[in-house]
Amino acid sequence: MNKVDLTESMEMLIKFRSEREWSQFHTPKNLAMSVAIESAELMEHFQWKNEEETKQYLSSQNNLEKVKEEIADTISYLLLLSTDLGIDLNQTVLDKIKKNEEKYPVAKCKGRNNKYNEL
Amino acid sequence: MNKVDLTESMEMLIKFRSEREWSQFHTPKNLAMSVAIESAELMEHFQWKNEEETKQYLSSQNNLEKVKEEIADTISYLLLLSTDLGIDLNQTVLDKIKKNEEKYPVAKCKGRNNKYNEL
Amino acid sequence: MNKVDLTESMEMLIKFRSEREWSQFHTPKNLAMSVAIESAELMEHFQWKNEEETKQYLSSQNNLEKVKEEIADTISYLLLLSTDLGIDLNQTVLDKIKKNEEKYPVAKCKGRNNKYNEL
Amino acid sequence: MNKVDLTESMEMLIKFRSEREWSQFHTPKNLAMSVAIESAELMEHFQWKNEEETKQYLSSQNNLEKVKEEIADTISYLLLLSTDLGIDLNQTVLDKIKKNEEKYPVAKCKGRNNKYNEL
Repeated sequence: MNKVDLTESMEMLIKFRSEREWSQFHTPKNLAMSVAIESAELMEHFQWKNEEETKQYLSSQNNLEKVKEEIADTISYLLLLSTDLGIDLNQTVLDKIKKNEEKYPVAKCKGRNNKYNEL
Repeated sequence: MNKVDLTESMEMLIKFRSEREWSQFHTPKNLAMSVAIESAELMEHFQWKNEEETKQYLSSQNNLEKVKEEIADTISYLLLLSTDLGIDLNQTVLDKIKKNEEKYPVAKCKGRNNKYNEL
Repeated sequence: MNKVDLTESMEMLIKFRSEREWSQFHTPKNLAMSVAIESAELMEHFQWKNEEETKQYLSSQNNLEKVKEEIADTISYLLLLSTDLGIDLNQTVLDKIKKNEEKYPVAKCKGRNNKYNEL
Repeated sequence: MNKVDLTESMEMLIKFRSEREWSQFHTPKNLAMSVAIESAELMEHFQWKNEEETKQYLSSQNNLEKVKEEIADTISYLLLLSTDLGIDLNQTVLDKIKKNEEKYPVAKCKGRNNKYNEL
């Protein structure tokens, strides 16, 4: 398993923002809005495409680079929001997985794509 | 600066998904859609609220926990998407910051909230 | 062709809002945010589902009713936003179709799902 | 009260789509995704802006035209989705308003921006 250490990303994002004096615009509401905007741009790459077309699209290095940029934008705003809220991101994800383990027990939902209220 | 190491989160997400045999549903298109859905749920916490009301809302530990869950959901789908696409997430963010440094030079956009095409 | 006359909807939405004194919260930014939030809830009904599963899902009257409610919510905020901005909605759509006719000439894009910049 | 009759819009949208043989791509899932994508583009016009800046932004005819195009795109996909699902859009909105009248009684929520579960 490769490391997924975003410490340097977080440091650079905070530095980038601080140099531009942009934290004044980064209210939690504005950051959440920006996560949603960037995630829609990410989604746009797959608009209208079926599975086969998606695969082909992503096999182009050029397209993959564009998709990576949208992923970067989305995660960047999430990183900034979480530092502003004083959140330990790794612990937050682990806590949610624990909750989901109860909501989606393996025995009940193995191989099924139903929502918990449809199980 | 605290570490932002999501390695354990990534491992647990992959394990959670594998146990439920859900990777069959996790096409890039479906994952991108899910990032967008979760980010809208995150945004919903701030719907209609002004800055003061947002601050008050987040001062409640109970509300903050709910916001943290939405952040966890959004980032979880991004983590899964990036591992499926074979992306080094930290490098991807750093590359995008470098690009943004050229797009948004400090001298031009310090303290300004304009988009690069409005500068 | 059935009529698609939303005049009564618009009247009732404005009345509903006025009785609750909610127009103070309905800034263009907040309304746009709300359109995005409701559209994500609409999208959520199709999350993880393939085409066949979507069809089956919508064949249940109960599910269709829920989908209709999300469509209603999304369009309601668009109606309120457009009245606040003094927009003639029908003319606005017709103008955009005209623009799209030039952007997507029939000869070039018949039966193709490419974006205009990929044609 | 001006009429909000979108019959002509609906006719032209169906004609536009039919000429391009695009209904094959217009699954409910893809249309819902497209509503979400366009609504994020609408939202983007207000990203980072406070109320005063939004007002100033919209006072430019050029900016307003761009906002109108995003509103047109968002509503167009909703119109196509509703015709595909055989929905009477006006009745659907009126039904939802009726439901909201019970969920949000005037006495309880006049001048308040709380969600029904916070009232």
